[in-house]
This record gives sequence, structure tokens and C-alpha cells, in this order.
Amino acid sequence: MLNPSERIDQLYADDIQIIQSPEVFSFSLDAVLLANFPRVPKRGTIVDLCAGNGAVGLFLSRKTQGHIYQIELQERLADMAQRSIQLNHLEERMTMYNLDLKDSFTKIRPDSVDLLVCNPPYFRDLPTNNKNPNQHLALARHEIATTLEEVIAVSSKLLKMNGHFALVHRPDRFLDILELMKKYRIAPKRIRFVYPKQEKDANIILVEGIKDGKTDGFKIKPSLIVYDENGQYTPEVRRMLYGK
Amino acid sequence: MLNPSERIDQLYADDIQIIQSPEVFSFSLDAVLLANFPRVPKRGTIVDLCAGNGAVGLFLSRKTQGHIYQIELQERLADMAQRSIQLNHLEERMTMYNLDLKDSFTKIRPDSVDLLVCNPPYFRDLPTNNKNPNQHLALARHEIATTLEEVIAVSSKLLKMNGHFALVHRPDRFLDILELMKKYRIAPKRIRFVYPKQEKDANIILVEGIKDGKTDGFKIKPSLIVYDENGQYTPEVRRMLYGK
Repeated sequence: MLNPSERIDQLYADDIQIIQSPEVFSFSLDAVLLANFPRVPKRGTIVDLCAGNGAVGLFLSRKTQGHIYQIELQERLADMAQRSIQLNHLEERMTMYNLDLKDSFTKIRPDSVDLLVCNPPYFRDLPTNNKNPNQHLALARHEIATTLEEVIAVSSKLLKMNGHFALVHRPDRFLDILELMKKYRIAPKRIRFVYPKQEKDANIILVEGIKDGKTDGFKIKPSLIVYDENGQYTPEVRRMLYGK
Repeated sequence: MLNPSERIDQLYADDIQIIQSPEVFSFSLDAVLLANFPRVPKRGTIVDLCAGNGAVGLFLSRKTQGHIYQIELQERLADMAQRSIQLNHLEERMTMYNLDLKDSFTKIRPDSVDLLVCNPPYFRDLPTNNKNPNQHLALARHEIATTLEEVIAVSSKLLKMNGHFALVHRPDRFLDILELMKKYRIAPKRIRFVYPKQEKDANIILVEGIKDGKTDGFKIKPSLIVYDENGQYTPEVRRMLYGK
């Protein structure tokens, strides 16, 4: 079941096993934060865009009886994700499509999705950037194969009216995210800022919006501090990772 | 020096005395947070728009040798602020103008201000709102005599290129604030969210922007929690209020 360099890791909080490879992709705290952020519908259609090795969808599978569709461009990551679905006996509730997200509509109808989650590449593909020489990691981290605008445009098209959209990203793209959500008719409703320590700037943002939603009722949810003053995970992060 | 209902309060951190009246206006934590948020230029022209009883400008006077102009529509508040300037012997560095902010340009040249701070009325003047029957408090709290758009438009016109703008407001207007700043060419640069307690939604936002600034370098500054789990002010708030 495992290829060279791969190993099986465990998310204890959700009792999920996940195939990873440090050469190709390993999930980060961002995936755990994203899976714990939106209200997850008990049934319906859930999409994980830019799914990577499938971590976010796997974690979400513990919160819903709906069907989770995962879309990942990179064949090697999609293959790892497919094997993780089998490893967790989730074949009847999860489907991995090895697709460019532009081609999502060949598999998933527009205006049909109840919840769409996305942990996209964070970094602009600028020539001055020091791209990762490892092409797998570069594609996952840099806007090489897609852009933030394309991600949000495709998300909006997939979502049904009043469907929910949840994104994890970096603060330096926050203003772009809000503008693009407006452009593609996703009303921001809940935002949460994640700070590595109490006295540090935020380094992760979580944004939830509703397609064709009203703009009232906007909330800034409680701050999430990752590490306490002793460098230990704070209780909320510990619960997300270890379940206690 | 005091009219009926007025008293002299003290901000210990900055050793400032301030004339207040519970019937008319008393400064709140918001004013202290705003005065402690932006980088304050050592010299130059500083404007406090919607100055109320002058609290923000008085607190800022401890951080700069520049001249602070205060603009307040309500005669009774402007008069209290004028007497507080005298009480603190700041007549040579502070000037209160009892003006509608629309008429700011009769006293302050456009494109001349280095830092503009504003603690505007927070609540939309909607007919469904329960307005405060006290007209002084209603004008200070509700968008009756001005609107958020007018505040930001006037601010932008007063600021010189690369002048700084700092605003305190409520999260439910956050998206409007960002849109209006863009419309009036003030690039958001630093945002800070203030949470009443660790596990609560943010209830105050602090936004700093630069007129005609670039949009890169945007930061979400550290979270500010006001009360600890015992209901006591946290150390940072205590320092702002009491200096220790």
C-alpha cells in the first residue's frame, strides 16, 4: 500500500490515518484548522478543492454523513489520497478526482455544492520568488497551476445558492480574498485570525462565506493562539490535534 | 471651570486630566485603544476628527511635539474639550474647532495632515434603531450628522500623500470600511482586532492605512484581549490605562 518515502501518519483527534510523504506533501496545521472551522452540513455535497493528499476531506468525514468530493491536480498526491480513503474504509462517502480544478465541472454540477473547503497554494507565482525546486511542493505552495482568483471563481460556480465556502490562507492576501469573494458573489460571514503566539501578528486566516448571502451578520470569531508562552500547543489546538 | 454635571477624570497612563459629563459624553476604552494604535509622528500636523470631548487628542499629546487639531460638531463637547486643553496647559500644541467635519477645509488645508485619527459614530442611522433619547449621546453614537463614507472621504482629502489614517470601529462595519478606504485611496496597512475575552468574538477593530500607499506589507497585528478569565484587565490594557 505504501510507495517509497511514504509513511502512515495519524490525526488522533479524528482517528484518521493518512498516507504522507515528506518528498511530496504532508498536511500541516492549516489543514486541521480548516477542517475545524466551518459549520459542516450533516448531509449533502461537500467539495475539497486543492485537496493535496486529502487531509481536509478525511478530517471532515468525521463530521458529516454527506459525500465528500476531493479534487487534486497532482497525480501522485491524488493517488496517495485515494489510498488513504481505502485505508480509512471511506470509499462509499469519499471520491478523489485527479483533475485540474478548471475541469471540476466535468464531475460536479455547478450550483450543487453545500460546503466547499479549500487550502490553496499560498504564494504568488512571481519570478522573484524562490520557488521550491521540488516540483510537487512548488505546485502545492505557489500559484503556478492556478491562482487565487481561479480558485474563488470555480468555488462560486460549484456552490449552490446559500452554499458555504471556507478558505485557509495567509494575512497578506486577506484584502485580495475579500475583493475576489465580492466579485464572485460570496458574502464573507465569519473570519478567524490565527496567531502563532499571544504577542505575534496573525499568520493564518480562516474565512467563511455564503454564496449570494446577505452581508449583514458579519463576525470576527475568537482569536486562536497556537502556542502558549512555554511553546506548548494551547488547549484548543491540542483538542483539534489530539482530541483532548 | 466645570459646568453642572461635569467632573474631571484622569487617564493615569498619560497623566492627562479630562473634563467629562455622563449626561453629554465620557470617553471609553475605544479612545484609549485608538490613541495607542498608530505610529505617531514626532512632529507635523495631527487631526482628531469626531473629537468628542477631546480624549484621543489629549492622549496623543503625550506622544508627539506636532500640533493636534480637533474637530467636533457639538458645541457643548467642543467647549469641554477646549477647557481640557487649558486644564492640561496644551494651548500651544492643541486647537479645538467647533465645526461640522464637512467644513474642516475652512481651517485645515487639504493634503496637509500627517496623521488623522477618528472615533466616529458607530451605528447606522436606521429608522429601526433605538436611538438614544439624549441628543448629545445620539449624535456621538449614531450616523445622524455624518456617515462613515463622509468621515473617510474628508479624512482622505485632509491627508497628505503617505499620511496615516487610524480608525476605531465595530466589526460589523469592517467590510464597509475596507471598501470605503479603497474608494478614497487609503491603503489598509495594519489591522488589530480587540476581543473582550479570550473565547469571545472581536467587538472592536483598529485600522491603520496610508493615503496613496501601496497595498503590500499588510499586517494583522497581535490580538488584544481586554479582560482575563477573572474579569480583570489584561496587562496590555492595564498599561494603556494606568501606565503599569
